[in-house]
Amino acid sequence: MSDHPTYPTSLGVSDRHTISLLGQDLSTDLIGKVSFGHLAYRLITLREPTAPQARVFEAVLVALADHGFTPTAIAARMTYLSAPESIQGALASGLLGGGSRFLGVSEDTGRFLADALAGADELPTTPEGWDALAADAVRRQQAAGRFVPGLGHHLHKDGDPRIPALYDIAREEGQLGPHLALFEAVGRVAPEVTGKALPLNGAGACGAALADIGIPLELLRGVVLLARCAGLLGHIAEEARGHHVAADVFADVERHAVYVAPDPAPATGGEDA
Amino acid sequence: MSDHPTYPTSLGVSDRHTISLLGQDLSTDLIGKVSFGHLAYRLITLREPTAPQARVFEAVLVALADHGFTPTAIAARMTYLSAPESIQGALASGLLGGGSRFLGVSEDTGRFLADALAGADELPTTPEGWDALAADAVRRQQAAGRFVPGLGHHLHKDGDPRIPALYDIAREEGQLGPHLALFEAVGRVAPEVTGKALPLNGAGACGAALADIGIPLELLRGVVLLARCAGLLGHIAEEARGHHVAADVFADVERHAVYVAPDPAPATGGEDA
Amino acid sequence: MSDHPTYPTSLGVSDRHTISLLGQDLSTDLIGKVSFGHLAYRLITLREPTAPQARVFEAVLVALADHGFTPTAIAARMTYLSAPESIQGALASGLLGGGSRFLGVSEDTGRFLADALAGADELPTTPEGWDALAADAVRRQQAAGRFVPGLGHHLHKDGDPRIPALYDIAREEGQLGPHLALFEAVGRVAPEVTGKALPLNGAGACGAALADIGIPLELLRGVVLLARCAGLLGHIAEEARGHHVAADVFADVERHAVYVAPDPAPATGGEDA
Amino acid sequence: MSDHPTYPTSLGVSDRHTISLLGQDLSTDLIGKVSFGHLAYRLITLREPTAPQARVFEAVLVALADHGFTPTAIAARMTYLSAPESIQGALASGLLGGGSRFLGVSEDTGRFLADALAGADELPTTPEGWDALAADAVRRQQAAGRFVPGLGHHLHKDGDPRIPALYDIAREEGQLGPHLALFEAVGRVAPEVTGKALPLNGAGACGAALADIGIPLELLRGVVLLARCAGLLGHIAEEARGHHVAADVFADVERHAVYVAPDPAPATGGEDA
Repeated sequence: MSDHPTYPTSLGVSDRHTISLLGQDLSTDLIGKVSFGHLAYRLITLREPTAPQARVFEAVLVALADHGFTPTAIAARMTYLSAPESIQGALASGLLGGGSRFLGVSEDTGRFLADALAGADELPTTPEGWDALAADAVRRQQAAGRFVPGLGHHLHKDGDPRIPALYDIAREEGQLGPHLALFEAVGRVAPEVTGKALPLNGAGACGAALADIGIPLELLRGVVLLARCAGLLGHIAEEARGHHVAADVFADVERHAVYVAPDPAPATGGEDA
Repeated sequence: MSDHPTYPTSLGVSDRHTISLLGQDLSTDLIGKVSFGHLAYRLITLREPTAPQARVFEAVLVALADHGFTPTAIAARMTYLSAPESIQGALASGLLGGGSRFLGVSEDTGRFLADALAGADELPTTPEGWDALAADAVRRQQAAGRFVPGLGHHLHKDGDPRIPALYDIAREEGQLGPHLALFEAVGRVAPEVTGKALPLNGAGACGAALADIGIPLELLRGVVLLARCAGLLGHIAEEARGHHVAADVFADVERHAVYVAPDPAPATGGEDA
Repeated sequence: MSDHPTYPTSLGVSDRHTISLLGQDLSTDLIGKVSFGHLAYRLITLREPTAPQARVFEAVLVALADHGFTPTAIAARMTYLSAPESIQGALASGLLGGGSRFLGVSEDTGRFLADALAGADELPTTPEGWDALAADAVRRQQAAGRFVPGLGHHLHKDGDPRIPALYDIAREEGQLGPHLALFEAVGRVAPEVTGKALPLNGAGACGAALADIGIPLELLRGVVLLARCAGLLGHIAEEARGHHVAADVFADVERHAVYVAPDPAPATGGEDA
Repeated sequence: MSDHPTYPTSLGVSDRHTISLLGQDLSTDLIGKVSFGHLAYRLITLREPTAPQARVFEAVLVALADHGFTPTAIAARMTYLSAPESIQGALASGLLGGGSRFLGVSEDTGRFLADALAGADELPTTPEGWDALAADAVRRQQAAGRFVPGLGHHLHKDGDPRIPALYDIAREEGQLGPHLALFEAVGRVAPEVTGKALPLNGAGACGAALADIGIPLELLRGVVLLARCAGLLGHIAEEARGHHVAADVFADVERHAVYVAPDPAPATGGEDA
């Protein structure tokens, strides 16, 4: 057996008498001692959050938990309608929408800000310095033909109400780090640089805040998914209580379906080279 | 538009200036004011937990978050190995194992206990009374040819260390309700009734505790999935940091694959009736 | 390494120079020699289908591939809208609706028929004999408080047009076996036995046909999922070509969302036992 | 109701008496008349394949259906072990690995070839012309710091045996179009241009072949997923027949798990800006 690979982990290991998690005794050190949000932070980072970091982390999870009838919520409800015996399928179906267009904004913003910070020789110390760094980052993003992530919201056109709430908490807790500072500067300079009046959105601020409290960039979207998990369970619970939104949406879509003949597409392929 | 269906929800609704969640203002009433666990309880039940209920809820989430290299964790890691750009797919892949054999125990136990309680004319008031109710429930389960859920663990054969931790907290918080009381009694009487020395397991106790704090039975598995979401993110984060467990398991499995010819199965079907 | 487990399979194994599948050389014996439907039958059953079995199998796959804007199709489109870069997520999201209410009918019907056949001392040889067996099966299902699977369709109230097509092919190919014969008899006797004029539905007939050609009962739903996979790709392809059904449904649902305050639920839990 | 959106589709629409698919009557025109592979091609492209296109399409589906104990197959088996009552979850879990590292090669190769072809003023007419175009494409890919997709296989180091099989069929059917021609040229020139002896792989050739028969680039991965669906059902069927590979892998992984303390990570975040 000496040549068998071993499988290292810093998470859970068990033997007959104990369950250890993160190197601590689950039963005596963790259950009832730490909040779920605290544990989630540790599982992701392998570090204890400071109390301020933990508060920001919980605040971000709360901010991202639910946003009503999003496409992900509709998908989860549809799947629950079809397979109510498999709640895990309904939840998974909803989480699978956690991609580039909706839930990915937090991660995209975090990466955008981290790249800009990594490219700076040293961090600015004045608002003007932050504005200059932000303007430079926005211009380079535009030059590359890419959107600036974290800007604009299809509904909150005058400003996303989560923004001041998140900044207040970060400031109170001494967690307004470079990512949030740069994001705020992006909000100040973007209208002039881009020519568009797009306010900062909450998903972007959440990404910046998570980066500032030490969540690795490649796990930012994972945190969003954890938050959304709670919201999706709320939607599934409503269906389970008999709200029937999924059935009504399905009936409405079916009723308004119309057949359209496909365009006569030009033949493609088939010529031997 | 008068005949258009409306889609009712008690969760999130937004307009240009506000985001409301559960009838409260997300930004001013919830972000930074409540923990993520607290919010999750409310999204699922539409009720405010009492402080004792909230503490038990967080304790259960912590107890269920991770149990090492379970099949669900292995599935999530395999999927991350194949599609690292789609963290939502890895997470969903892991959650999809939340079914009857592993993560379903909490729900099965909660339902078993709730059925037994519903069948009792009145709740027992003495340990002997609980034991009698438990013995009756176990016997009826056996008579129906079904396992008693919440008994036994493939590793913790002398007792699951989470059990005392969970009962202590429930007792401290005044939340040791009828489901936990009956479950405890099941643990006392099961060896004699079933002839097998199977101790209570932690997943079962979690189901009982959740039922006692008012989580609807049909959402018990959903709570387990929320808890496991954090653990799966921990596994994904380990892969992302370069642990390569998935790659090593894959290589080991591939190396020990052997082809076996199928049994010459008897022909079936094909006869016209 | 002698104590290392081995992992047996009758499917694919590879070495440096060959890829073997089902004990044959993939490149010389299978690619271009067999249809995809034929191979799928073999992967599931480990048996070569006869030509008649293969034709029925392909017919069933075609019959089940798409049924328009079902909840599963809507879920897949919603997920594609949210995460268009992850087509596997959109497909998986749609397949996850393959449960009890919609796509599970074929399996439920196959199991119902197989149980009834297993309970018969010998197979009937006359229409009257089949009718008696069917009436008995329907009555026992009703006595157990369960629906008779395969009966009724929310749209095709006068008969599902797939039924005659499937029976014609099965008869032509000599594959009208006991499951299809019993299902046909169920259709004859059900109105009188149940007092409801519910015609046979196509999903049920597909389950019966698959059972007759030797698909194991526990894989019936798997075949339905394979069929549906093609339909879901069709829906995803429409979204990719710019149909925007998902975006329009999302916008319509969001526009008609209304907040409802939850019922003041009675407090539950919290009393110490 | 006049302002209600309509939902256009060219796939399935039904009314009380008919089910129409792709503008044809499902029951009279499609069931029993076309193979499942043929229908899948049409659902994806909205065009009838020619007989040669249909044969290449089925050949590619067969080539991609299964490759043994891949990470996707292991994930599906693990999920089936955990939730055997939810076969759709096991299948979805496996498909979710259809991302960049394994199943994405076909799409990546198709896109790489299509880009190179789009950049050519006119298609080459001689082998030397194809080689020049291929060498140019490979060089540009390298200059951009990207891998050339479709090259190399962790097992088939002397050449993937599917390559000659696929080219033979494409040639026989007159479907050796520009993508396959360019891919072949890439195989000829890559060793000299890249300095590495990496042979063409089968997944890449499948992507080229699909592009040549008119599958849209954004659906190439979808076709791979459809093919893999059949293989995953084969793995699930083996578990259902009692092979227990998943249980044995799980036990082996659990047995070789070792706890490692995390690196004392440098503190991050938390400084107010």
